Amino acid sequence: MADVAVAAGVSVKTVSNVLAEHPGVREETRARVLTAVDALGYRLNPAASRLRSGRTGVIAFALPHLYQPYFGDVAERVIAEGERHGYTVVIEPTDALLARERAVLSGGRAQQVDGAILSPAALGVIDLQGLHVEGPVVLLGARLDDPPADQVVMDDRGASRTAVAHLLAAGRTRIAAVGTTQDGGSADEREAGYRDALTAAGVPVDPALLLDAPDWDRRSSGAAAAVRLLDSGAPFDAVFCFNDAMAFGVLRVLASRGLRVPEDVAVVGFDNTEQSRFSTPPLTSVDPGQEQIARTAVDLLVRRIEGRTGAPEVVVADHHLVVRESSGGPRTPVV
Amino acid sequence: MADVAVAAGVSVKTVSNVLAEHPGVREETRARVLTAVDALGYRLNPAASRLRSGRTGVIAFALPHLYQPYFGDVAERVIAEGERHGYTVVIEPTDALLARERAVLSGGRAQQVDGAILSPAALGVIDLQGLHVEGPVVLLGARLDDPPADQVVMDDRGASRTAVAHLLAAGRTRIAAVGTTQDGGSADEREAGYRDALTAAGVPVDPALLLDAPDWDRRSSGAAAAVRLLDSGAPFDAVFCFNDAMAFGVLRVLASRGLRVPEDVAVVGFDNTEQSRFSTPPLTSVDPGQEQIARTAVDLLVRRIEGRTGAPEVVVADHHLVVRESSGGPRTPVV
Repeated sequence: MADVAVAAGVSVKTVSNVLAEHPGVREETRARVLTAVDALGYRLNPAASRLRSGRTGVIAFALPHLYQPYFGDVAERVIAEGERHGYTVVIEPTDALLARERAVLSGGRAQQVDGAILSPAALGVIDLQGLHVEGPVVLLGARLDDPPADQVVMDDRGASRTAVAHLLAAGRTRIAAVGTTQDGGSADEREAGYRDALTAAGVPVDPALLLDAPDWDRRSSGAAAAVRLLDSGAPFDAVFCFNDAMAFGVLRVLASRGLRVPEDVAVVGFDNTEQSRFSTPPLTSVDPGQEQIARTAVDLLVRRIEGRTGAPEVVVADHHLVVRESSGGPRTPVV
Repeated sequence: MADVAVAAGVSVKTVSNVLAEHPGVREETRARVLTAVDALGYRLNPAASRLRSGRTGVIAFALPHLYQPYFGDVAERVIAEGERHGYTVVIEPTDALLARERAVLSGGRAQQVDGAILSPAALGVIDLQGLHVEGPVVLLGARLDDPPADQVVMDDRGASRTAVAHLLAAGRTRIAAVGTTQDGGSADEREAGYRDALTAAGVPVDPALLLDAPDWDRRSSGAAAAVRLLDSGAPFDAVFCFNDAMAFGVLRVLASRGLRVPEDVAVVGFDNTEQSRFSTPPLTSVDPGQEQIARTAVDLLVRRIEGRTGAPEVVVADHHLVVRESSGGPRTPVV
C-alpha cells in the first residue's frame, strides 16, 4: 500500500480510503490511486482485510452429502438467495461427521465466514437442545424445543401424514414405509406421521412393512429395502419412502421384478427433487417447501449478521404433496 | 493470548508454542496452558493464524452448478480425496459466471484457500490458453494446447466415439445427438466423436438428428430436445446424449409417448452418474473416469501447494462405456 501511495503521490490513508470505497475522496485522486494500483499489480490481502473489517461477504452452507439429490437442489437455492443479498455461498460438506458439525456451531471452522447454515445429520435433537452456538447460525432440520439458534424446520410428521393419507384415499391399505431408523430426528417424525395416518384410517401398523434404512441413499437403503420387502413375501400395494433417493432405488427394483407402478404398487417419495419429475413413472413426492426453506434461512442469517439480536426464531415451512403418475396421478407432459 | 499467559504463569511465546503444537514444551506446562485456554474460552483467530502461517488447510472446488448430478458426484469424490490428504474441501458454485471463474484463477476469490480446482463453464478454450494463473490451481475439462495450470482432462472425443460405435454395432443407424452447442469445448469434442464414429461406419451425418441444447439439464435441454425430435418426424432408432441429465429428460419423454427403450429407441448418456443405475431402464453411459479425475486433480493440487514447480502437467483420464439395459445390455440386479 505504501508503494501505491508513493506512485500516486498521496498518503497511505488515502489509498486505504479509496480501496475501502469510502466517500470523500476526490474523483481525480481516486482515479490516480486506481491507476497506481493497476500499474503495480497491487492486490488486497484477503486475510488482512478480513482482520480489519471483520466481514468476509461469505456464508457457509454445511450439509451432510452432495450425493443426495435433495441437498444439491437446496444448495442451488441457497446460493441464489445468498446472491440476492450480496453474499457468496460456499458449500461445506460435513460427511455427516459429528466433529465437523460441531465445528460449524462453535466457530472453530477451517474457513472464516460471516455466518453459517447447518443441516445437521450426526448431531441429534438431544445434542442440539440448548447448545452454545458461536456467531450467526441458522439450523435446518427437525424442530427443537429449546433451539440454540434460528431454525427453519419442516413439518416432517404432518407432511408424512398427508402423503400416507393420499395413498389410503387411493384405496391402498398395505403401505410399506422405507427409511425408518429409530435414532430420533426426521426419520422418527416421518414414521410418526405414517402411523398417524394409518391409525386415523383404522388400518393396523404391520411391523413387517417398516423397513429400516439408515443411509437414505438409492442403493444400500432404497433398493436393498425393496429387495428385502419382496423377498419377505409380505403383501404390499404401496411404498412410502422417507426421501426421493430411496424411492428411485425402490422404483428400480420394482421394475426389474416386473411389477407395474402404480397398477401393482403405488410409490411416494419425499423432497420433490428435480429428478422426481423425470423418473419412470414420474414420482409423487412431498414438497417440503425447499424454496421457502432456502429463502427464509438466508433471510434469517443475513439479519443476524447485520446485527439482529434476540431469542432464536423458528419458522416452519409449508409443505404440499405433488401427485404424479407413481401413485395414480394424471399423465402430464414435462415440457 | 496475553491473558492466557498470565493465567498459566508462562510467557506469551510458550502459549504460542503450545497452540502451534510445537515440540519442546514440557507436558506439565502444556497442560497448564490448555487449562487456562479452556478457562478463559480463548479461541484462535483463524484470519490471524492464516496471516502468520500462510496456509489454511482448505482447498476450493469451483464448479458451475450443483443441480447437475455429475458435479454432485465428482464433488463427493474430491471431498474424499481431499480428506485423504488432510485438506478440507469447500465447494464454490460459480453459476457458470465468467467473473467468478476468473476470480478463482486470479486469486481474487472471496475466501482464502491453499489452492483451487476449477471446472470451467463460462471460460472457453480460447480464454484459458496461456492465461496467467495465480497460486496453485488445477483445471478440469477440455484439453488445452497451452494450459496455464495443471489439467486433468477427459478424452471427450474418444469417449463419444466409443459410445456411438456401440450403438452402431447394435444395428442402430439413425442416431440422434442431444447437446450440441457450437461454442467450443466439451460439446464440440463430443460432437466430433459422434461424427467420427458415423463416418467410420459409412453412415451419413443427418443435421436433423443434431439437437442443440445449451444448458445440458433434464428439462429445458434433454426433455425439450426429445420433444423437438419427435415432433420433427425425423425417423430415429437411438439417442446419444452428451450427459446423463439430458438422457433422463429424453427417457421421460420417450416413456410418455409410449416408445419402448431399447426396443424402439436405444439411449446412451455420458457421465455414469449414480442415478444412471436407477433409471428405467438403467442407462448405458460413458464413465469418464470420475474417480481417477478426482484423485489425480487433488494429487496434482496438493503437490503444487507443497512446493512442486515446473511446467503444467496434463493427465488424460481413462474412460469406458458401461452398457446397461437402455441400449440392450443385460438385466442385472442393482443390489
